[in-house]
Formats: sequence, structure tokens, C-alpha cells
Amino acid sequence: MQAPEFITTEWFNADDTTKLADYRGKVVVVEAFQMLCPGCIQHGIPLAQKIQRMFPADQVAVLGLHCVFEHHAAMTPVSLNAFLQEFQVTFPIAVDAAGEGYVPQTMEAYQLRGTPSLLIIDQKGELQAHQLGQVSELQIGAEIATLIASDRSALGADASLEAASGCESGLCTV
Amino acid sequence: MQAPEFITTEWFNADDTTKLADYRGKVVVVEAFQMLCPGCIQHGIPLAQKIQRMFPADQVAVLGLHCVFEHHAAMTPVSLNAFLQEFQVTFPIAVDAAGEGYVPQTMEAYQLRGTPSLLIIDQKGELQAHQLGQVSELQIGAEIATLIASDRSALGADASLEAASGCESGLCTV
Amino acid sequence: MQAPEFITTEWFNADDTTKLADYRGKVVVVEAFQMLCPGCIQHGIPLAQKIQRMFPADQVAVLGLHCVFEHHAAMTPVSLNAFLQEFQVTFPIAVDAAGEGYVPQTMEAYQLRGTPSLLIIDQKGELQAHQLGQVSELQIGAEIATLIASDRSALGADASLEAASGCESGLCTV
Amino acid sequence: MQAPEFITTEWFNADDTTKLADYRGKVVVVEAFQMLCPGCIQHGIPLAQKIQRMFPADQVAVLGLHCVFEHHAAMTPVSLNAFLQEFQVTFPIAVDAAGEGYVPQTMEAYQLRGTPSLLIIDQKGELQAHQLGQVSELQIGAEIATLIASDRSALGADASLEAASGCESGLCTV
Repeated sequence: MQAPEFITTEWFNADDTTKLADYRGKVVVVEAFQMLCPGCIQHGIPLAQKIQRMFPADQVAVLGLHCVFEHHAAMTPVSLNAFLQEFQVTFPIAVDAAGEGYVPQTMEAYQLRGTPSLLIIDQKGELQAHQLGQVSELQIGAEIATLIASDRSALGADASLEAASGCESGLCTV
Repeated sequence: MQAPEFITTEWFNADDTTKLADYRGKVVVVEAFQMLCPGCIQHGIPLAQKIQRMFPADQVAVLGLHCVFEHHAAMTPVSLNAFLQEFQVTFPIAVDAAGEGYVPQTMEAYQLRGTPSLLIIDQKGELQAHQLGQVSELQIGAEIATLIASDRSALGADASLEAASGCESGLCTV
Repeated sequence: MQAPEFITTEWFNADDTTKLADYRGKVVVVEAFQMLCPGCIQHGIPLAQKIQRMFPADQVAVLGLHCVFEHHAAMTPVSLNAFLQEFQVTFPIAVDAAGEGYVPQTMEAYQLRGTPSLLIIDQKGELQAHQLGQVSELQIGAEIATLIASDRSALGADASLEAASGCESGLCTV
Repeated sequence: MQAPEFITTEWFNADDTTKLADYRGKVVVVEAFQMLCPGCIQHGIPLAQKIQRMFPADQVAVLGLHCVFEHHAAMTPVSLNAFLQEFQVTFPIAVDAAGEGYVPQTMEAYQLRGTPSLLIIDQKGELQAHQLGQVSELQIGAEIATLIASDRSALGADASLEAASGCESGLCTV
């Protein structure tokens, strides 16, 4: 499935005109969260920060999607801004636009069942995975690397040989 | 560098005639450890067990290499056997053969600097990575998946498409 | 030093007319926190919840003091209310009254240097300890128990017999 | 119940003639363990080391009791010696003497059901608590401090009765 464009009211750590489509050509990892959701604070946000540090920025983009579906009056952009500062979140954060009910519009478009949810979108904009709750770092590392490698092999034989020769994606191989 | 064959006195969880070369065609992850090394117990062995659970056995083989370079009288095969039972280690364990000095022969052949060390050997038997100490699960997951994907792309376009089509290695992709 | 009375604008999980003095006769453990302070979420609040579960409510009272000294617009009572629900905080929370500068009035009266800070007040209302940052559970358990024991020995034999009558907390004693 | 004297074949980090009775006058915390028991390595030994660091040595003695009831050939004194060095255990360790069956003699005298077990013995040699498995640091800190405080109050006659009768803080004493 093609990943739906984000419907946002504003962005933090990026220009307000930013679009998901701007990241086409990279693997995009989206951390869908609410700032007062315990699992997001304990697992989701720290994992997204690790992914941001581990993979090179020209291959993998990490984005946050603040999709508030409860306690709307408590998780405002003013509060989110303080949260991002306190937890040292530096990747771009999209603020999901309110919908007609409790669930905001982008969250509904992706049919997310809760937070934290981790989405992985490939270089062509296809949604490749989404997972609710705590996820395995081994698995996420494998999924991201598989997409990077697939994209390289699509470039043809030379890139494929290069990929086979070893040290990719900034990882410390022999 | 081609990964040197293991020089062993016996194996646990496998036949004593087992060879590293028997696993050619798979990515081989080797946890080099000593049973009384704190970092091995706290990080190395649990990581190897997670890798064993995460990746399909027909693509990734997890092996242990018990390479004792200190307290030789304490870390005998009898003690190792009890350790493996208590810590529920079920992957094959090679017992590295004593050398002329403190360091056993396989450990010397691989020039390992200590334990725990994690080795990653590709499907053709090339040593692709070795890391001493605590390692990132994101990174290890990515390294293993990169080797799996490289091997597929070497098979030609069809395999490449298959790789691109999504859900592999038991991971929960869309 | 006698623990200063709290200067509050409201309380959660307690009547708004609640006073610190209402808890005289018990050991009072005060978790001074801000809802968006990472150390408070990771260590301070969980420790206070453990103390609440471990010690009998007729001997030890656990209170929160929400003392906002930064990001005032982000950490409002509306946001705090959602935070307390999401993190399942059930002990009484006093909202510290704003002062003339950034630091609220109770925080200034206690001369706290930051959050999380843990205060221990004895049964007579004397401030016995305050500690900034992550604290040892062994040490906090010992400090609370020392105050309980000191109070009992001051009461004489009758109280002592009462105290001796039971194994209370479902713990596995001989 | 009066804590039975240890029946030992040797001690590490102490003279082989050491007796439990030598520690009379102090609170004695005994970590009963097996060197290849996962819960002992993960929780029991680290907790005993924290207690050793937290409480003053003239008031609290921390001892280990190596009570092997399985894999006897694997957990010999030679192996134990290496274990203690690798895990930097510096408190005295008694090696429990083999019994007629699998269970060693001191373990049987205390009727321990497994490892890790934590024993707390008061200044007069009375066994005040024993707990199997992972234990709460708050609770253990409280139990030790309660015994220290009781002993202090024993300087007066009424309080002395109280101290002998045991359990004060609602924590897990007899």
C-alpha cells in the first residue's frame, strides 16, 4: 500500500510546509506517538532516537507523528514543544490534524490502533511495516537494512556488487 | 578474509565432527565467549539467543565458540555443560582447542582480543564483522539482513524482486 | 528543620484544602517533580509508587509536589491531570503555587535545586532528608524504616506489642 | 529461630575457621547461591554487593553461602574461586558441606527451598527473614534498618523486649 500523505497542522524541527513525499528515495521510519503515553516515552521515542543515530541520514529518515486521540486539551503544541526539548528529540515531528471524532486524520488514514506505532516506508513510498507496542531492535534493524539493500540491488549489477563487498550503512564491518 | 575453520576438542548441542564449513550457504553468527565472563553472561549469550529466535534457521546459523584464555581449570567441559543447561543455550557450541600459551587456537586464528566477541560470517565463508564487547541490536540486525539481501540479489533479478516483495525472515511486514 | 507547610493552588487525588500538617504522625515521603522532566518519569515517580505499595498507609504517606520552574505554559493542571491518569499515579499531588520568579513558592521554601527531589519528613514534621536525582532504593527503604522504628521506641511497650503482632505485607517470612 | 551455625568445608575471602557466630552483634545478611544459577548471577549477587556498599561494615556483615544442590561436578571450589574473581565478589563466602543426598548440610539445616535465597539474621543470632527469588531493595533496606534501630533502642530495658520480639515496620519479619 502506498503510504498516505500526512495531514498536519504544523511541524516541529522542520518547516511547516514539509511533506512525507519530501523524503521519497529514503527509507522513512515514522514513530507515531502521544507525548503522555507511557510506552511512547519508555520505548518508542528512545528507539526512534537510536535509529536516527545508527543509520546515515542520506539513507534513512526518522520522523515523528504526534497523533493525539485522547486527552486532547493536555497534549497541545505548546506542551509538545516543551516535551521535545526536555527529551532532546531532534528529528522532524508532524502534528496530526484533528479529525471529526477523537482520532486525528493521518492516524485514521493509516488505520493505526494505538501508540506507540512504528511505521516503515520504503524508498518508493510504499508502507512496508507497521507495528504497535514495543518492538525488537534486531527486527527493526533487519527490516531497515533489507529495504536499503533491496533498493541498491534495483540499481543494477554494479551497485549489487558494491553492496556485496561489505561495509555499508556506516556499520563497522571488516 | 576467509573465516578460518574452527579447531575444536568437542561440541555441545552438535556432533563432535561438526565443522564451520558445514554452515556454508547461511549467514553464521558466532558468539565467542567464556562461561565465567560477566559481559558474556549479561549481554553476549542473551543476544545470541535473541538472534537464534529472530532469524529463520535455514538462513542464519548461530554458533557458540567457548574460547577459554584464563581460569582454564575452572571452565572445563563439565562446567560448561552445566552452564549451557542452566542458561538454556540450545545452539551448537564449539570448544576451542588449547594452544601453546593461554590463548586457544581458534581464538588466535581469528585474532580475537577478548570475550564476548561477535563474529559475522557470510554465506561464502567470508568474515564480514567482528566486534568486542556490548553491541547494538539495531546494528547486528542490520548487518545480518544486509548479508541475507546481498545473497539474494546475487541470484539475479527474480530473487531481487522476491526480496523486494516484503515479508521475509518471519518479520511482521505489511 | 521543621518542614514548611505547602503553598498550593490545588490538589489532585485529595481535597483542595489538604495540608502537609494533616499527615503529622506518619512518615511523609514527598516526590517533588515536574511532569515533563525525564528523570522524574523514569525514576522519581516509579520509586514513589513502589514506596506507596511497600509501606502500610497508616505509617507512611506518599505525596507528590508538582513544582514547575520551567515550561510553565506546558505543564498546566489540565496536562498534569492527564499525566496522572496515564501513569496511574494515585497518591495525593499538591500543585505548588507560582512565585514571583520562575521558581514556585514551596520549592523555594524548601530550597530545592531541581527535580526529581525526594523529601523525607518524620512523624513530628521535621525534614529528615532531601535528595536530588536518582536515589538508592536500599537507602530510602532504610531511612523510612529507621524513622518508623524510632517513633515506636519512643512510644513504649504497648505500641511495641502492637507492632510485633504481625507479618503484614504478604512477604515470605520464616 | 536461632540461626544454625554454618557447616563448611572452606571459606573464600575469609579464614577457613570462620564461623557465623563470629558476626554476632551485627546484622548478618546471607546470600545463599550457586555460581551457575541464573537468578543468583542476575539478581542475588549484585544485591548482596549493593548491601555491602550501602551499610557500614561495623553494623552489617554480608556473607555468601555456596550451597550446591545440582551439577556438583561443575561448581567446585576451583570454579567458584574463578567466579568470585570475575564477578568481583569480596565478601566472605562459606562453602556448604556436602550432605548425604543432593542437598548440602547448611542448606538443609535452614530448610532453604532453592537459590538465590536471602537470609537476614539479627544481632543476637536469630533468623529474622529468608526469601527465595528476586527481592525488593526497598524492603531489604527497611528490614536491615529496622534491626539496626531495634538494637539501638535495646539500650533501654523496655525497648529491649521489643527488639527481641521482632517485627516492627510492617515488613517481613517473624
